[in-house]
Amino acid sequence: MDDVRTRVLTAATELFAELGYDATSVQQVVNRAGVTKGALYHYFSSKEELLFEIYGSVIAEQLAGLDRVLAQEMAPVPTLRAIIADVVETTAEHSLATAVFTRERTKLNLEHWHALQAQWRRYQDTVRGVIRDAQASGDFAAVASPEVISWMIFGVTSTMPTWYRPDGPKKAAEIADEICAVVFAALAPSTSDSLTSDRKN
Amino acid sequence: MDDVRTRVLTAATELFAELGYDATSVQQVVNRAGVTKGALYHYFSSKEELLFEIYGSVIAEQLAGLDRVLAQEMAPVPTLRAIIADVVETTAEHSLATAVFTRERTKLNLEHWHALQAQWRRYQDTVRGVIRDAQASGDFAAVASPEVISWMIFGVTSTMPTWYRPDGPKKAAEIADEICAVVFAALAPSTSDSLTSDRKN
Repeated sequence: MDDVRTRVLTAATELFAELGYDATSVQQVVNRAGVTKGALYHYFSSKEELLFEIYGSVIAEQLAGLDRVLAQEMAPVPTLRAIIADVVETTAEHSLATAVFTRERTKLNLEHWHALQAQWRRYQDTVRGVIRDAQASGDFAAVASPEVISWMIFGVTSTMPTWYRPDGPKKAAEIADEICAVVFAALAPSTSDSLTSDRKN
Repeated sequence: MDDVRTRVLTAATELFAELGYDATSVQQVVNRAGVTKGALYHYFSSKEELLFEIYGSVIAEQLAGLDRVLAQEMAPVPTLRAIIADVVETTAEHSLATAVFTRERTKLNLEHWHALQAQWRRYQDTVRGVIRDAQASGDFAAVASPEVISWMIFGVTSTMPTWYRPDGPKKAAEIADEICAVVFAALAPSTSDSLTSDRKN
């Protein structure tokens, strides 16, 4: 990404996190980024577009990660493991952007809001499809619905800004491993299930 | 709770959710609640105190629920099941209050913020203690740390305002049952564990 664009987005993320969206002026973003107002308006048409791009760039990165994982056509367990690792690590990396979005999303215009909602729905529906297919084939136990399982996975990641600290005792990769341990212990087909199920062996 | 106090808090919750905290005036709260300004100021010293009480009353109710569950001195599984059911149902019931808190918590003054943080920490630490003790005794598998397990439980509940609908296909009690199914499937001590563990039988 262009250096000026990145500096502007980083400055806006920090200021929105510190002062709130409403209390932050474009002039403050320009000052913090060390660019001219003209340079900012070359990339962003408004303060609102900064807010949109802050989270839009995160979800775009996460969707690209999702597509990369799916392109590998792995079995359900490594697929879901790679998805969880990617979403935990990208959320940790963009913790401030996620916090700003959670707090300020009502300030987005309707078009931008719907665009982000559509991307997020695509992400969520894809993950649910992976779980649903694996439950149908017997690779995952049907312990709960794909909806509730996905809400548990995304609930823990989207609340990371409230509990994750980059300098905390646990690295993002370790947190992802623990989440995977819980998810796969819950989704493991039990021995009795596999003995009594209708699966073709 | 006093009827006027309840009406004021309900009106404030709705308006903060619809317009945002900053854009809502005390006069609008008074109008919506159908009370006098004097009546509002009899119970609340400021708009900020309304924000504090909106979530403060939810966490107070949840802590009371937690204490009621613990007082029954049940085994770990029914204890954690009752805690999850209570937190899911109270969050569903107070979904708007939870959404307002998530969005507007940075508007709280430091004293109020610390008070809520302390209550939330007491809730979280208590639940972690239940999980930790049950893992130490062998009643729960040590599949992941009590921290990550509790973040998964509270992540799914605190994001409920973004996905739970009172008129949706699933009632809160059903959602709680599914969350419990995932948690207890993950925490079930495996047969091989119980054969090889150091537990006194």
